[in-house]
Amino acid sequence: MPENRAVATDPQGMTPKTGRFFEDFRLGETLVHATPRTVTEGDASLYIALTGARHPLYCAAPAARQFGFRQQPLDDLLAFHIAFGKTVPDISVNAVANLGYADVQFLAPVYPGDTLTTQSEVIGLKQNSNGRTGIVYVLSRAHNQVQQPVLSWVRWVMVRKHDTAAPAPTPVIPDLPREVPPAALPGLDELDGSRFDPLLTGSDRRWEDYSPGERINHPAGMTIDPSDHTLATKLYQNTARVHFDQLAMQDSPMRQRLVYGGHVISICRALSYDGLENALLIRAINGGTHVNPTFAGDTIYCWSEILERWALPGRTDLGALRLRLVGLKNCPPSALASSHQGQTTDGGYHDAVVLDLDYSVIMPRHQ
Amino acid sequence: MPENRAVATDPQGMTPKTGRFFEDFRLGETLVHATPRTVTEGDASLYIALTGARHPLYCAAPAARQFGFRQQPLDDLLAFHIAFGKTVPDISVNAVANLGYADVQFLAPVYPGDTLTTQSEVIGLKQNSNGRTGIVYVLSRAHNQVQQPVLSWVRWVMVRKHDTAAPAPTPVIPDLPREVPPAALPGLDELDGSRFDPLLTGSDRRWEDYSPGERINHPAGMTIDPSDHTLATKLYQNTARVHFDQLAMQDSPMRQRLVYGGHVISICRALSYDGLENALLIRAINGGTHVNPTFAGDTIYCWSEILERWALPGRTDLGALRLRLVGLKNCPPSALASSHQGQTTDGGYHDAVVLDLDYSVIMPRHQ
Amino acid sequence: MPENRAVATDPQGMTPKTGRFFEDFRLGETLVHATPRTVTEGDASLYIALTGARHPLYCAAPAARQFGFRQQPLDDLLAFHIAFGKTVPDISVNAVANLGYADVQFLAPVYPGDTLTTQSEVIGLKQNSNGRTGIVYVLSRAHNQVQQPVLSWVRWVMVRKHDTAAPAPTPVIPDLPREVPPAALPGLDELDGSRFDPLLTGSDRRWEDYSPGERINHPAGMTIDPSDHTLATKLYQNTARVHFDQLAMQDSPMRQRLVYGGHVISICRALSYDGLENALLIRAINGGTHVNPTFAGDTIYCWSEILERWALPGRTDLGALRLRLVGLKNCPPSALASSHQGQTTDGGYHDAVVLDLDYSVIMPRHQ
Repeated sequence: MPENRAVATDPQGMTPKTGRFFEDFRLGETLVHATPRTVTEGDASLYIALTGARHPLYCAAPAARQFGFRQQPLDDLLAFHIAFGKTVPDISVNAVANLGYADVQFLAPVYPGDTLTTQSEVIGLKQNSNGRTGIVYVLSRAHNQVQQPVLSWVRWVMVRKHDTAAPAPTPVIPDLPREVPPAALPGLDELDGSRFDPLLTGSDRRWEDYSPGERINHPAGMTIDPSDHTLATKLYQNTARVHFDQLAMQDSPMRQRLVYGGHVISICRALSYDGLENALLIRAINGGTHVNPTFAGDTIYCWSEILERWALPGRTDLGALRLRLVGLKNCPPSALASSHQGQTTDGGYHDAVVLDLDYSVIMPRHQ
Repeated sequence: MPENRAVATDPQGMTPKTGRFFEDFRLGETLVHATPRTVTEGDASLYIALTGARHPLYCAAPAARQFGFRQQPLDDLLAFHIAFGKTVPDISVNAVANLGYADVQFLAPVYPGDTLTTQSEVIGLKQNSNGRTGIVYVLSRAHNQVQQPVLSWVRWVMVRKHDTAAPAPTPVIPDLPREVPPAALPGLDELDGSRFDPLLTGSDRRWEDYSPGERINHPAGMTIDPSDHTLATKLYQNTARVHFDQLAMQDSPMRQRLVYGGHVISICRALSYDGLENALLIRAINGGTHVNPTFAGDTIYCWSEILERWALPGRTDLGALRLRLVGLKNCPPSALASSHQGQTTDGGYHDAVVLDLDYSVIMPRHQ
Repeated sequence: MPENRAVATDPQGMTPKTGRFFEDFRLGETLVHATPRTVTEGDASLYIALTGARHPLYCAAPAARQFGFRQQPLDDLLAFHIAFGKTVPDISVNAVANLGYADVQFLAPVYPGDTLTTQSEVIGLKQNSNGRTGIVYVLSRAHNQVQQPVLSWVRWVMVRKHDTAAPAPTPVIPDLPREVPPAALPGLDELDGSRFDPLLTGSDRRWEDYSPGERINHPAGMTIDPSDHTLATKLYQNTARVHFDQLAMQDSPMRQRLVYGGHVISICRALSYDGLENALLIRAINGGTHVNPTFAGDTIYCWSEILERWALPGRTDLGALRLRLVGLKNCPPSALASSHQGQTTDGGYHDAVVLDLDYSVIMPRHQ
């Protein structure tokens, strides 16, 4: 038992740096994020335990190899969450809000044993008119241990100013693509959809069998418990305080810890399996927003809408679907005709909507 | 952020198929279940974290190899739960009740890296007199990636009819063995019990030291928390709604999510280590029933009874014990003289009893 | 479904042995603990999920190899908790209190695939004057599968007597070192701090930049949920009833399960990353005490004090810091000027203090 020692320093002590404020960001600068991470089969098992994911290319090694992967890759979203987590201490620890994602590209498979690093470039800055906050746009890229790019994405966050007297930067708002176009969907060269076996998923519903405008109410719901979401977020080494510190959060308007939005995306993706069994791979997230907060105890449901059906240049084995994934809390999708409050689409979102995600998946085609 | 899009389809959307009803089953048909699963060391670590399991052949690679395994195998019950989970979407998603198990055989070790697939044959059907439900008997078999059978079991479930006007099938009730006889206990050929070292478990109590009729009150209890059991059940990719969807369950008579019965079996097996330290392997489950539901917050205890002590043909190194494992909730085993309510064995079960399992284990013999 | 069987034995049954009482310990005896454990990448992933740990040598294989490790080792504390867990059934199952640790040495890295075994020597015994309890001092050593020592530590626990009439042993209190001196800090020979890259942690604050007397208030807090701490403690196969059995604990003065103290150490170590990013390795725990109990729902914070800055003989690449790590519950460190109640250091600890740990870490030096 150590004895007590008088401490000579100031009682408040030295406070470590805790992330950047709005005035600390410079247009064009590159931030190399800390904590490279070697991903493993252990992460993959945990991801299944945390989400119930069943997409076969991420849980059945022979199916993955048959499809053209060197070995069983990590779930696209697991890789994304780990790569994303690294950006939090530098980008969003002082964020007031995560405003959106765009142009998320899944460039190459991430395999157990790979080591991920992430860096971010500041591509836009705009101080808000209140002078107390600003919006930071960053383009983040994750690489593996041989410097191959595996993921890239843009996000924008509202960040507090620490020194409100700091001068406002010249506003720069980047021109962001509304979507990753089908010809640019990455990471498909080595894959062979003709080898897909519908016994893997129990469904032979393929790309041609879905039509734009169709809506699928996924039947399953999943209640989020306190440990699940914090385990997930710690696994991703995401350090955002709102997810972990109940004492701090009980004085916030939410009065409780917030579930990491990425966990909600993963839960919805897993729930969407029933009805979209053969949406084998995610290749892009075109945009997304966390409409309302999710808390432990909420039961998550979702519906999907087919936005577009895209043929892929030169491919008869695989096609792409652009999907809208609407996550709901404590409300099954059959209870809501629209994600919006009123009968028109002009109103705000229903309180039950937690996620509105626009993303692109790859499906096998009938041959 | 994706814009809202008008959706042309019916507000209720397309509902994906959600499993079979009683009238969908045909005697003799074979269902090939989806979601092959490659099991890993990550699953094994999670299983220890979820149950506290300590049986040495599943957590100490040198002990496993010494005993004759090629490498450290997965816990028998972990392999069973993963193989079993695959049957849920096809067999029991619309089940009213899981009525029983029989003839569960652990045919071959499952190693990290193996990929499990499961198929089921319908071996019995009997419509209930109410005309609204029926009993389905299935024989399920799991294989590894080289098509070696690793597990087989029979279970029977009560399933709702969707179309109550559908004709009743000719009743067929399969003739099920009351036990897997000792001469048929599988998967022992390559094992050498003479190499067992009692330092592995801290107990030299072996096969000869247990007598039929003996009861062992295992001292430890374990409280089940919300995330534990849902993490376990998601790890097994078991999709039964009763375990996950609190919103749906709060309108059920139980008013809350039900703990997967297999998790209760695993907890009891882990708790039974103290007193049955050298019950190294499970080779059969002769029968079992989940007597009462278990919920998050319940503290699980158990007792074991030695039902039979079986010599194994031609083996002086190993013997088998047929055991009864009685799981209790919120009641230590010393408080109950019998699993039944009254002084006789004719009454119903005590409310505290959650599990009554009849299974066969392998123990080293004194040489 | 097994039939009910009349059980011939006493209704209370045979109770398995449940650990040693004070009078069962003999000075000088060696206890070989059960349950050897092969550690894996799955354990490492779980450890990150359970604690949010970010120290790079345990999560980035290239960084670990660059630094001189053969491969990515397990987190020092993960290895310690697993090795420690094995001692519980023999040493502390009947403990009234864990009184302290001393001379904890991290002798060699533990790699995925290694198998840990632990044995303990009784090095001190002293019956308390009440005649109902006594203090047992044990020196425990963990080895890997090639019998290389990887960890050693002393702890002392207060254990109940079962037979209060048993004679008191001759009191022997071992002479324990107040610290592991810098020249004796183990396991550094193969490491090369000159290869440290500050991009790994985002901080170039190194050994020379810390001064004795300095205090660091780590900014992050982490709330412990019910499943997290029981998952951790089960992963370590630590069987102490106080962590698991809510039914038994509700009649204790605490009225609830106690969080394993080692989990609190791990949480504090992970939280201390912000401000001590380059405290890459723990090489010794000089002493420590769990001042107050931690329960699920508590939010943990911590501060660190630099106790000593030690050069290492013959090393210009690495130096050691002796640190005090004070863990707090439901109270940020900025709110407490001292760990003690009054203005002097003579009073008792504040109720918010849960941990007071004195340990030694290795940091890279500026070259």
